[in-house]
Amino acid sequence: MKKDILLINGLLFSPESGESQGQTRHYIKIAAGIIQDIGPMDQCRVDDLCPVVDASGCLMLPGLINGHCHGAMTLFRGLADDLELMNWLENHIFPAEAKCVTPEMVYWSSKLAAAEMIRGGITTVADGYFYEDAAARAFADSGMRAVAAHGVVDFPAPGVPDPALKFQVVSDFIDQWQGHERIVPAVFAHSPYTCGPETLQAAKVLARSKGCLFFMHLAETKQESEGIKTKTGLSPVRYLQSLDILDGSSVCVHGVWLDAEDIALLAEKNTKVITCPESNMKLASGIAPVKELVETGVCVGIGTDGAASNNTLNILQEMGSCMMLQKVSGGGAPFLSEKHVFEMATSKGAQVLGLEKSIGSLEPGKRADVVLVDMDQFGLMKPFDSYASLVCSASGVDVKTVIINGEVVMDNREIVSFDEKEAMSRVRRLAEKVRG
Amino acid sequence: MKKDILLINGLLFSPESGESQGQTRHYIKIAAGIIQDIGPMDQCRVDDLCPVVDASGCLMLPGLINGHCHGAMTLFRGLADDLELMNWLENHIFPAEAKCVTPEMVYWSSKLAAAEMIRGGITTVADGYFYEDAAARAFADSGMRAVAAHGVVDFPAPGVPDPALKFQVVSDFIDQWQGHERIVPAVFAHSPYTCGPETLQAAKVLARSKGCLFFMHLAETKQESEGIKTKTGLSPVRYLQSLDILDGSSVCVHGVWLDAEDIALLAEKNTKVITCPESNMKLASGIAPVKELVETGVCVGIGTDGAASNNTLNILQEMGSCMMLQKVSGGGAPFLSEKHVFEMATSKGAQVLGLEKSIGSLEPGKRADVVLVDMDQFGLMKPFDSYASLVCSASGVDVKTVIINGEVVMDNREIVSFDEKEAMSRVRRLAEKVRG
Repeated sequence: MKKDILLINGLLFSPESGESQGQTRHYIKIAAGIIQDIGPMDQCRVDDLCPVVDASGCLMLPGLINGHCHGAMTLFRGLADDLELMNWLENHIFPAEAKCVTPEMVYWSSKLAAAEMIRGGITTVADGYFYEDAAARAFADSGMRAVAAHGVVDFPAPGVPDPALKFQVVSDFIDQWQGHERIVPAVFAHSPYTCGPETLQAAKVLARSKGCLFFMHLAETKQESEGIKTKTGLSPVRYLQSLDILDGSSVCVHGVWLDAEDIALLAEKNTKVITCPESNMKLASGIAPVKELVETGVCVGIGTDGAASNNTLNILQEMGSCMMLQKVSGGGAPFLSEKHVFEMATSKGAQVLGLEKSIGSLEPGKRADVVLVDMDQFGLMKPFDSYASLVCSASGVDVKTVIINGEVVMDNREIVSFDEKEAMSRVRRLAEKVRG
Repeated sequence: MKKDILLINGLLFSPESGESQGQTRHYIKIAAGIIQDIGPMDQCRVDDLCPVVDASGCLMLPGLINGHCHGAMTLFRGLADDLELMNWLENHIFPAEAKCVTPEMVYWSSKLAAAEMIRGGITTVADGYFYEDAAARAFADSGMRAVAAHGVVDFPAPGVPDPALKFQVVSDFIDQWQGHERIVPAVFAHSPYTCGPETLQAAKVLARSKGCLFFMHLAETKQESEGIKTKTGLSPVRYLQSLDILDGSSVCVHGVWLDAEDIALLAEKNTKVITCPESNMKLASGIAPVKELVETGVCVGIGTDGAASNNTLNILQEMGSCMMLQKVSGGGAPFLSEKHVFEMATSKGAQVLGLEKSIGSLEPGKRADVVLVDMDQFGLMKPFDSYASLVCSASGVDVKTVIINGEVVMDNREIVSFDEKEAMSRVRRLAEKVRG
């Protein structure tokens, strides 16, 4: 039985201005994992039986959504830097994965990722990896909400030594997790350069038949984009369209190299995009046309990507980077606004994941994913509380308490849902093998 | 009398690889504010009379150098966002400054800035503002090292209601602070659009006569650059050259809109540049040609700019942004490397400020500005300790202890040199007037 929780004395952002609403203190009543009621404190009725969390001095935010991650790659953080994608991937990451990826590695490295994400106010992650069953277990055990997408590639992969069996593995994975309260299984076809057209189509057919989301790294680098054009005569997006893959349940991750026709097609098909600005910057992949996507009506969320190409799993920092990069690369000072990028990490992120009815905002009826940000730290959030303060001051934002699905996962800076020190020491031990 | 300190059991970066040197524990012996000796622990002789700081589990870094800041602008953080420079400055910042800037405001807001910077491992700041005497007092009282540059503009300014007296005010300021152990006075001519040619020349003559650095915001926006070209027929850099301002003691802040001839001239004159990537991104000013500057031989440091245009004073985060922005905007994955950007915030930053003999690296004979970074937090620095881990994981970097000029300023996450809570509450009270 889920406990009820009454959050009291917290501040809320006004959705329009981002000002914390006239500094009026609010309560949030949580019952059975659901937000039951929100209101100003003078209308709060305290029920003696309900545990109270005092949010005094805190801003109450909807849990942040990390729209793209490979949690298990915390093991490879700092393994190879200053490299472009294909060199990084083919000469460093793929070999390390071939050597090191086991269910145990995926479990502990994903759990370490969960610790980092929870500490940064992330309550939902869209993850994709091999042995995704182990990742799903890690996220389930951590208390996080996750869309866990099982990886598909054409070559032998960890957990799928025989590529002929890949769809059986993914299908079993989906069957096992569908119906879980916090874990949503999905399919991750790695990319058009690691999956042939038959694989892509079959993966989408499987996702459709199971009612699952279909993810794919797409149009990440110029090289990829040009390679597909050379091979098929089509841009990556139009290539997917030719394979009947674009629909409202497909999510293109990265979407850096897109032209106007691609963008119009994504909008028409209601296909979603997740932008990963720090990974794209670090791998020198390019700058996603977020402004054009948004103006054309494409729903765009934001993700950190894995820790090996970022190297943090901090969506607050990612929001700042996204906002700044868009402004300087042509959007001008007004675009991307802090308000918009905040929505990318909350309401729009939820929409990308098809979870907009249950998460992404603080509203009665939604799942209770709530983050308390301490506003009394070093004056960073003061004097002017706004989206800008939050988005631009990532390094100073102090997440105090995290509630996911109505359960307290971090309480006053202490993760209470699992032993993060154990995850840390397990990953350290695993790391000895990576370079060994 | 300065106490001696013996740091024991800490890890050091190898300057070349950035790996912490084979995980060998090191000691640093500090005497009378100076690094006396550094070596592996097995050569450490413990003197019973010398206080010991145990740096176990910590990486020992040279103090970080914030090459450009307006500390007092912490008061205006979040006041006006999503605006381009001239709109932001003329319609929001200058009016707020005219209304709010007093010596008291500068003192407390600068002290709040000092708290934020110390918490982020910054030991030296190059600051510029009005009432810089109050800022210098704040930094002196905070325990920080600062190059404090007094602002010069043509119009009536806070503390200088009569522009005819501006050089007297600045000259008195310099006389008062020269010889201070941690505060170095300097001149800050705001910009070529707020200072006429006579003012610029007179400010440089004053700086030269006092043996001081001369700072100036230069070539920050396209509009500024084109405006100067229209007025003088010269680029901003060549305009300064025509006024005999370029030399090894001049520092151009921003340097975004530079052509090859400008860059060659800066290199020839040994004029330094401070890049402020987050401010330039946020105000949509543009991307500084750091690669071209560095390849041509210009010494480039890094700064946060003020809190109203960033909005954090975190040089670790700034390093990450700088590195990522340069990679994606043409440098490719190899440039800017994490090692290089780390040097911009340490050894090269010291060189920009003419302090390379006393700070910027951990070497015997240098002033003891040492930062201890806790590497046992959330596995962020593990498993592969490197410049990349530090630079790319800013949001997870946990600065534990800060020593400046041989004095412990922050001890185990607690600022001991002054009362940061007092600074915070003073700034909050001042903030009520800004919007009032």
